[in-house]
Amino acid sequence: MKNRDSESFQSIEWKDDTLTIIDQTHLPSSEVYTQLNSVGQVWDAIKKLKVRGAPAIGIAAAYGLYLGVRDLPDSGYTSFYSECKRISDYLNSSRPTAVNLSWALNRLLATVKSRKELPTDELKSLILNTAKIIHDEDRRMCKAIGEHGVELVPDEASVLTHCNTGGLATGQYGTAFSIIFHAHQAGKIEHVWVDETRPLLQGARLTTWELAKAEIPHQLIVDSAAAFLMQSGRVDMVITGADRITKNGDSANKIGTYALAVLAKEHNIPFYIAAPSSTIDMSLETGNDIDIELRDESEIKKFAGKQSAPHHTAAFNPAFDVTPHRLITAIITENGVIRPEYSKQFEAAFM
Amino acid sequence: MKNRDSESFQSIEWKDDTLTIIDQTHLPSSEVYTQLNSVGQVWDAIKKLKVRGAPAIGIAAAYGLYLGVRDLPDSGYTSFYSECKRISDYLNSSRPTAVNLSWALNRLLATVKSRKELPTDELKSLILNTAKIIHDEDRRMCKAIGEHGVELVPDEASVLTHCNTGGLATGQYGTAFSIIFHAHQAGKIEHVWVDETRPLLQGARLTTWELAKAEIPHQLIVDSAAAFLMQSGRVDMVITGADRITKNGDSANKIGTYALAVLAKEHNIPFYIAAPSSTIDMSLETGNDIDIELRDESEIKKFAGKQSAPHHTAAFNPAFDVTPHRLITAIITENGVIRPEYSKQFEAAFM
Repeated sequence: MKNRDSESFQSIEWKDDTLTIIDQTHLPSSEVYTQLNSVGQVWDAIKKLKVRGAPAIGIAAAYGLYLGVRDLPDSGYTSFYSECKRISDYLNSSRPTAVNLSWALNRLLATVKSRKELPTDELKSLILNTAKIIHDEDRRMCKAIGEHGVELVPDEASVLTHCNTGGLATGQYGTAFSIIFHAHQAGKIEHVWVDETRPLLQGARLTTWELAKAEIPHQLIVDSAAAFLMQSGRVDMVITGADRITKNGDSANKIGTYALAVLAKEHNIPFYIAAPSSTIDMSLETGNDIDIELRDESEIKKFAGKQSAPHHTAAFNPAFDVTPHRLITAIITENGVIRPEYSKQFEAAFM
Repeated sequence: MKNRDSESFQSIEWKDDTLTIIDQTHLPSSEVYTQLNSVGQVWDAIKKLKVRGAPAIGIAAAYGLYLGVRDLPDSGYTSFYSECKRISDYLNSSRPTAVNLSWALNRLLATVKSRKELPTDELKSLILNTAKIIHDEDRRMCKAIGEHGVELVPDEASVLTHCNTGGLATGQYGTAFSIIFHAHQAGKIEHVWVDETRPLLQGARLTTWELAKAEIPHQLIVDSAAAFLMQSGRVDMVITGADRITKNGDSANKIGTYALAVLAKEHNIPFYIAAPSSTIDMSLETGNDIDIELRDESEIKKFAGKQSAPHHTAAFNPAFDVTPHRLITAIITENGVIRPEYSKQFEAAFM
């Protein structure tokens, strides 16, 4: 057993009436903590990807709303709520497609609305406390995912993971990363293989940094070396996150995840998905219903800002792929380990 | 049918008593042709990777030996041969591990030795002519690989390839690239998917450039997007080169090739290897006998001098992987298309 029960960094922290974040644009070359004291600074931090990862953005925006209303004069509920709405719209404009951003802000607005009888000062406190609750819920959810996942990790495990699913992107601990973290606490992790995760290199830049912080032994590989590692018996399990899971268990995640699942099957290696239950979208029957976002060609044609392909070359850049449920050994959520048949298990849980 | 029967560039050309090469260190951003008029310039071009690719290096070195002896005074055979040997050793020192380099130089030395009765001037001509023969043999071998492979390409084919296997690395046409090129001449290619090929990005930098030169429609992808393309029915065949093929057909090639072969099998897509017959090493029984070169970690942690992972991160960088023969639909050499069972076919060909 390791004697540390939490990660050694906080990507987002509320302390001394200030929001402190790790400025992720400086990672991995340096670890810069930035204090945000106004809603404008929070907007800017989200816009410029200083804070990134869906849950982390939602948490930062929640604190941001509080920073926006903190110094408002007391002019009655109607005026206060309309200011809350204006600031919320402003924060939403920083990353319009981030679902957690609007989810967190809508929750705060609904909370204010439900207590309109309170004086303005108490409504301000209510917003701050709700922001702390959103943060804490995410932290506890990630911890639960990690703790549930530990049972799946064999002793002396070599684990392969893809992209960044750690505390940088969430309230703390992360999703797939949380399982690795908690299994390491339990003394079960021998080695972690980190896919660099082209095109944006979240594995190379962020996951390696988080593993080093947590003092977990690891090595970085190019994505296409995973097959060689499996073939040579160096991988005991694969764990990734998911962006969306459909009713039958098909899971959309960062491009490259599907290849890992096929390769894991070929080598009889268990393949796991870790994600909060909010990722399960019961309105979608199968992975065929998921639209795959095509992102800008420049992400592939450049590497770390440097041109790596001819200017006129066309590139095809799907951001995600879908892993069919038949390739997924189990899905780990904050509520526990879910095994096939997923559609039945999900229905039992969501009905 | 296209009306061009050769590529629109020559990576190496002997013309007007001068060796002209494409300086590959400037690709893909610009197309720079450099004239080499001395053995020192050839040594430098090989050393600095201005010319790269095993066959291309051998060809350049052969012309380089001629440039080295061209202006020697006539002091009799013994003196001439000893100069040839000295220059050959010098050229060999430019890339000591390049097999084709020493192979080409040894062939020239043996040729000189076998005709020691000739006057010095004629020995000089013999060296130049032998260099031209080495160049031409490679060109014809690559052309034959391409022409044999055309029969395997279906109409309106979408082909996926990995790394650089084209004319830049060979006398002309290349290996896997030659099949794509000749199938395109035959009007059979609809689209080529180009793996960027981490860590050194030969696909992104060189294959895209060669495809554009040959006016073949193509798009660049990250290596781990190949699975998504196969899953969505966008790939009809996979063709790659090989660095070494063992007696049973197991094939070593650039890291990432094995993953493609597993994925092709999962999606019932034919997977082909194209390579000269000299790649088949009958002294090795199976792929287990092939040592996998581990290359420097910096290839993964940096790109074009820019750090993309934390300085202290350890990386694992196997340069090659081995695709087992059972995953290979056919192997195309200059002698024709070889189908399983490879060990029997190879024995018939090599006995």
